[in-house]
Amino acid sequence: MNTRKISSDDVEVSIIKMLKTGKDDPTSGQAISTELGISRNAVWKHIENLRSMGYSIDASTKKGYTLSTPLPFNATELLSELKTEIIGTAIYYHDTLTSTNDMLGELARSNATEGTILLADSQTIGRGRAGRNWHSPEGKNIYTSILLRPRIHPQMAQSITLLAAVAVAETIKEFVPSGVEVKWPNDVLINERKVAGILTEMSSDTDMVKHIVLGIGINVNSSSTEYPEELKTIATSILDKNGSSADRLKVAGVLYSRLEKWYKIYLSKGPAPHLDAWKEFFTAAGKQVKVSGPPEIEGLCMGIDDDGALLIRSSSGEVIRAVSGEMSTNN
Amino acid sequence: MNTRKISSDDVEVSIIKMLKTGKDDPTSGQAISTELGISRNAVWKHIENLRSMGYSIDASTKKGYTLSTPLPFNATELLSELKTEIIGTAIYYHDTLTSTNDMLGELARSNATEGTILLADSQTIGRGRAGRNWHSPEGKNIYTSILLRPRIHPQMAQSITLLAAVAVAETIKEFVPSGVEVKWPNDVLINERKVAGILTEMSSDTDMVKHIVLGIGINVNSSSTEYPEELKTIATSILDKNGSSADRLKVAGVLYSRLEKWYKIYLSKGPAPHLDAWKEFFTAAGKQVKVSGPPEIEGLCMGIDDDGALLIRSSSGEVIRAVSGEMSTNN
Repeated sequence: MNTRKISSDDVEVSIIKMLKTGKDDPTSGQAISTELGISRNAVWKHIENLRSMGYSIDASTKKGYTLSTPLPFNATELLSELKTEIIGTAIYYHDTLTSTNDMLGELARSNATEGTILLADSQTIGRGRAGRNWHSPEGKNIYTSILLRPRIHPQMAQSITLLAAVAVAETIKEFVPSGVEVKWPNDVLINERKVAGILTEMSSDTDMVKHIVLGIGINVNSSSTEYPEELKTIATSILDKNGSSADRLKVAGVLYSRLEKWYKIYLSKGPAPHLDAWKEFFTAAGKQVKVSGPPEIEGLCMGIDDDGALLIRSSSGEVIRAVSGEMSTNN
Repeated sequence: MNTRKISSDDVEVSIIKMLKTGKDDPTSGQAISTELGISRNAVWKHIENLRSMGYSIDASTKKGYTLSTPLPFNATELLSELKTEIIGTAIYYHDTLTSTNDMLGELARSNATEGTILLADSQTIGRGRAGRNWHSPEGKNIYTSILLRPRIHPQMAQSITLLAAVAVAETIKEFVPSGVEVKWPNDVLINERKVAGILTEMSSDTDMVKHIVLGIGINVNSSSTEYPEELKTIATSILDKNGSSADRLKVAGVLYSRLEKWYKIYLSKGPAPHLDAWKEFFTAAGKQVKVSGPPEIEGLCMGIDDDGALLIRSSSGEVIRAVSGEMSTNN
């Protein structure tokens, strides 16, 4: 398992930066050694390590090192996509793990800082809402968890799921211009098929959140041909929609920056701005909907309230607040 | 560290039971061997182990084993006090640990069953609400955590603290007939001094509780002479009030049975019954109170609402709901 915590002062991050700056011109081992204040032998060891992480680095004895594409999917590359202050204070990358939410929960209990990101190339026990599985093949998609520590009452945490849904919907819209919408409470759809899901988990006292682990899965380059049977008619991906693959690192970079934008707004202004933004992506208002129970609620969807609860007007005219369950539209 | 998970089919529990049945008459090793289907040598080893757990067991070569008092404070003895079905499905006892809530949280994540009890003789990092320390000397008091897994929305979990407060207040009232009251939200007082505290922590999705760890500390036999300076004027114990010590195992036995009673009622009827019972122990209604903020709320205490939130009527006549903070009475 390739497991790393990475930061911008990491030597190997600096080496990659130098190689990228050099473009197709080789960068000499001596230049790296001088710039970073490490021995030539140390340079060589770091280059070997970078190769084992999936970087293609050609070495010419006389000229030096040249980096060629494709670049690997890892925390070093993610770091160069990140332009955030809160989200990404620490970055952990794993080739594979059980569940990004489970592992970030452990880090959270070990006092990981707010904004810690965990990114995985695949999950063996990826989880969705209500104990469901989240299909997590390697090399295709984004499986990430982000640690937040807002000083809020647990009752206010539900709104964080909707905040994440806005960030995810905006991210996908950058790559897929049409058909992106949110499904209450925690999914993002393209043309009514699920492209992303959010699993918000928290640890709290009864009156104060200790931490929130925001898990996000986005189907970037998985293909409808390879979905398990039960997903074939309900899942989609950016690849499925566009017919061409997207750069996962770019998708992740946009995601984290959108999350940061909305989280900063939330910390200063509360949930109203992201709830308004969420409504822009919500198409079920005004339609007949059903929310799984117990008790099952059926009626006209009136939108969401200030806490992010779904409002449904039953046939008797009563407006009922749904705070949990699955929503479906009666088409 | 003496750490044990114990259950009623434990051989040593059975041996202690036989010795107790025998009272002052010795129980022969042969009788134990026959009854429990173990070798004489195994009997001897278990007796040695029981002695290391603090039991006084006299052995007479010809007659057998005799148990004498005082009995130790441990899970075996607790088990003989328990007459519950849910609370105590598994019992863990530790001579000392960092925090019963932290350790039971770990057990909860390892799928411990609902009703699992963790009891400690002392805590090195006992925690109270809002990150405060809970004074946890050895050999005196009760430090316990109980695992609950109600299928409820996290918004409903606040009421569990009040449920526990009722169970604790009733328990203390069995030993201290007068002066017992509850302080919103999580303390129990005798004559306005804190005798017990509750720290409810939970892990949840935004719409469903995964587990609740109910931490309870009761000052049974600690004495005002030995409290740290900052507690001398605000803490008390059953010993302080009665002038004589109480049997911790009996206090714990009553506590678990009251918890079970109220939890069963909660599962079948919801929070109304225990909220009503809580109000019987609540003396601040009708008094001027202050709740620490932000924002600080001051006004006439109107009691609690159906969710267990404190209701305060401000000078402008507005009734404000407090869901967190510290309440104090303006005497």
